[in-house]
Amino acid sequence: MAKELTPRSENYSQWYQDLVIKADLAENSAVRGCMVIKPYGYAIWERMQAELDRMFKETGHVNAYFPLFIPKSFFSKEADHVEGFAKECAVVTHYRLKNDEEKGGVVVDPDAKLEEELIVRPTSETIIWNTYRNWIQSHRDLPLLINQWANVVRWEMRTRLFLRTAEFLWQEGHTAHATKEEAIEETVKMINVYADFAENFMALPVIKGHKTENERFAGALDTYTIEALMQDGKALQSGTSHFLGQNFAKAFDVKFTNKEGREEYVWATSWGVSTRLMGALIMAHSDDNGLVLPPKLAPIQVVIVPIYKKAEQLETISRKVNEIVDELKAKGISVKFDDSDNKKPGWKFAEYELKGVPVRLAVGPRDLENGTVEVARRDTLEKNVVSMEGIADYIQNLLNEIQLSIYNKAFEFRAQKTTKVDTWDEFKEVLQNKGGFVSAHWDGTPETEDLIKSKTKATVRCIPLQNEQEEGVCVYSGKPSKQRVLFAVAY
Amino acid sequence: MAKELTPRSENYSQWYQDLVIKADLAENSAVRGCMVIKPYGYAIWERMQAELDRMFKETGHVNAYFPLFIPKSFFSKEADHVEGFAKECAVVTHYRLKNDEEKGGVVVDPDAKLEEELIVRPTSETIIWNTYRNWIQSHRDLPLLINQWANVVRWEMRTRLFLRTAEFLWQEGHTAHATKEEAIEETVKMINVYADFAENFMALPVIKGHKTENERFAGALDTYTIEALMQDGKALQSGTSHFLGQNFAKAFDVKFTNKEGREEYVWATSWGVSTRLMGALIMAHSDDNGLVLPPKLAPIQVVIVPIYKKAEQLETISRKVNEIVDELKAKGISVKFDDSDNKKPGWKFAEYELKGVPVRLAVGPRDLENGTVEVARRDTLEKNVVSMEGIADYIQNLLNEIQLSIYNKAFEFRAQKTTKVDTWDEFKEVLQNKGGFVSAHWDGTPETEDLIKSKTKATVRCIPLQNEQEEGVCVYSGKPSKQRVLFAVAY
Repeated sequence: MAKELTPRSENYSQWYQDLVIKADLAENSAVRGCMVIKPYGYAIWERMQAELDRMFKETGHVNAYFPLFIPKSFFSKEADHVEGFAKECAVVTHYRLKNDEEKGGVVVDPDAKLEEELIVRPTSETIIWNTYRNWIQSHRDLPLLINQWANVVRWEMRTRLFLRTAEFLWQEGHTAHATKEEAIEETVKMINVYADFAENFMALPVIKGHKTENERFAGALDTYTIEALMQDGKALQSGTSHFLGQNFAKAFDVKFTNKEGREEYVWATSWGVSTRLMGALIMAHSDDNGLVLPPKLAPIQVVIVPIYKKAEQLETISRKVNEIVDELKAKGISVKFDDSDNKKPGWKFAEYELKGVPVRLAVGPRDLENGTVEVARRDTLEKNVVSMEGIADYIQNLLNEIQLSIYNKAFEFRAQKTTKVDTWDEFKEVLQNKGGFVSAHWDGTPETEDLIKSKTKATVRCIPLQNEQEEGVCVYSGKPSKQRVLFAVAY
Repeated sequence: MAKELTPRSENYSQWYQDLVIKADLAENSAVRGCMVIKPYGYAIWERMQAELDRMFKETGHVNAYFPLFIPKSFFSKEADHVEGFAKECAVVTHYRLKNDEEKGGVVVDPDAKLEEELIVRPTSETIIWNTYRNWIQSHRDLPLLINQWANVVRWEMRTRLFLRTAEFLWQEGHTAHATKEEAIEETVKMINVYADFAENFMALPVIKGHKTENERFAGALDTYTIEALMQDGKALQSGTSHFLGQNFAKAFDVKFTNKEGREEYVWATSWGVSTRLMGALIMAHSDDNGLVLPPKLAPIQVVIVPIYKKAEQLETISRKVNEIVDELKAKGISVKFDDSDNKKPGWKFAEYELKGVPVRLAVGPRDLENGTVEVARRDTLEKNVVSMEGIADYIQNLLNEIQLSIYNKAFEFRAQKTTKVDTWDEFKEVLQNKGGFVSAHWDGTPETEDLIKSKTKATVRCIPLQNEQEEGVCVYSGKPSKQRVLFAVAY
């Protein structure tokens, strides 16, 4: 079969690449590092967007839109920020092309050079805080709770579809607050929203925690993260929420008059998730037959395939199937009846397995006689013959069960792949042979983290929230430590 | 009052600018020609997007996402296309910044020059047709019915909020077909979708027609347009749908094997509407007090303002108002109860008028006694005292009536501002003193159109679909003509 995937056990990275391409999720474009998100992939992203957008609005946020371009001078105003992003900025320098016969065609017009270069936003803190300066005068203007859905560009040298691309789609929340406490509260609230979304919609268990200084967002005082574990034992940072302190307010001179009439700098947060979540979704659950999608994000939740030999049988089957379709739709279930006659059922089965459709129904003449239908689950590949009576309720329950079951499987996998270690030998051994999260004592210094990374490729993924405190010694340096942190090799 | 607008009669253009700023719809950013769409403006755009997206999907289209950047060589492949867009292209030439102490800070790294410059998409035909080459082999792969929601950049020298900005948000449909007839059918279908949206959601009557050669999209064989009339008598092109023939298929070598096994070039369409529609919506309906929004696109459809003197009265009023809020919400009506105590009712009335909230309810102690509520319509500024009994049904009907009434008003305005003229003197006189659409004979040549434009600023807005044929002579050249076309001065 043309659409066979490289097995995960053989080459996980190739399996991922095969799957993204063959399930029609995305492909590399002619522009280095930029991807095309194909309709089926985009349909999943749209479902993610819809749920996240609803969650943002329910927590009091509104959407807005800020410019794609950032003047270079703005970009440079916050020192850590520019340091963090300068190496990967796409820069617009000209605003016109012209025809030049001598040079053999269309060239950039040298007379149309911009006075100041524009950076294609890699993230929008600078342009947004420059705007907020005019929006915020008094404590009555706060909080400002704004989100933006946008494309951003980071000129990454090594790219992988969804996981790391030069252009990607994301949302970025940028909030402004009167007090430090309120800003921290917002930062935590949003990492909780992300965790809720990951767990309840993506069926992806995540660990919430703080990033270490090494891994913090450029310009943040504290970065909260949700970290998920992929099937190859590598971690994937799936969303971050940053407490920015007054760094951007100071860089852009954003002050407000507080209730006591004194001027103060505004407190900031920013938080974002991106199309990288697509990579997490794919890698966490899928298998050698293709995608496994949690029902809550599947563009097609149920596919119905008719099984017949003669055309007139299809007609009888269709009549019954259309009733089922109506019943399912009435329950808000997304269903596709694939009655195309140029593909065999076996081909269709494989195709919808590849595409991760959670439930497949097959209906043939025998089923019509018996009042039954064959129900196949994508996640476990189990098949059952069930009565057509009450089929919609049955399917609805089954979809809920699948959602939960996919989550539980990933949760158990993570539990099995999380190891407490107390010595450096153990640390290396576990990372090399088992992978996953390694819970170990660390002396808290960036230097030790760097050394550990250079020797094992593992980094501190996070210091979990409400982390248990215990006396110990750093696995690497032997220096005293008050808590374990989670290490892993990461995407 | 700080939020007063320049009256339309005094300076229509300033009125528009005032309104966009004071109603918190958008503002100019620090980046030349790029706007910030503020939360209230974006909320209206989101409603437009949601309806359009639904309509696109109902007509069989799916969404996808293509790169922001287009290699210069792709961009140059279709001669008319590059000719049309070359003068307004933002060009990315470098991909890194660096710190240069000698130059006093962060500079573009000269070592990070791209081998080939990238154009920030002004429209995506070229990158999309380059992609379609790999997606289309057989007639079975057709039609391809894809839409993209995206930002695009056209380096316009004279910009105006929403109407003409360097960066704007839009959707662009790009479809591929096996036959010319099918592609034309798609082109027409989408201009009809746009007209349906404009009339039934924006309450904006539009005229559907063909563009003349002069005004055609760069690379199209035929451009269909919807043209609307603003209150100052100028026309506004509100959406276009292009029949691209095989131009892009030939430029990017996109062929398919037809049912007879022969290779053929694919037929193309593209169609788009943008945040420019926001400008149309604002200018078509609003008045000197502020926005007038059609209920179907209003983020807040009903606002309720309590009228009271003592705090304990607010409590009693709130109890009743909350019942009304629940009833309205149950009918899917978007309602805001503004019980903020730091603003007076008069201030609130003016604010929601400015924001174009279609219906305002005021509830005071007297109303509670009488079981009544004061209902004010934004469009006509009429007030009525009505019974609280059945208020939700009353409001629902009223919202429908307002939607229709706004449309009818704009329709009558357009009828009154559409003039048939038969002589050049009349033509000039009408354009100068009355404005609006001028229906006149034209000899069909680009030269005459150019001359008319240079003398009157008016262009052919469109040749209406199913245009009545009649013998006549061109108002300008006196040459024979078979039909009248619609002229106007346009945005």
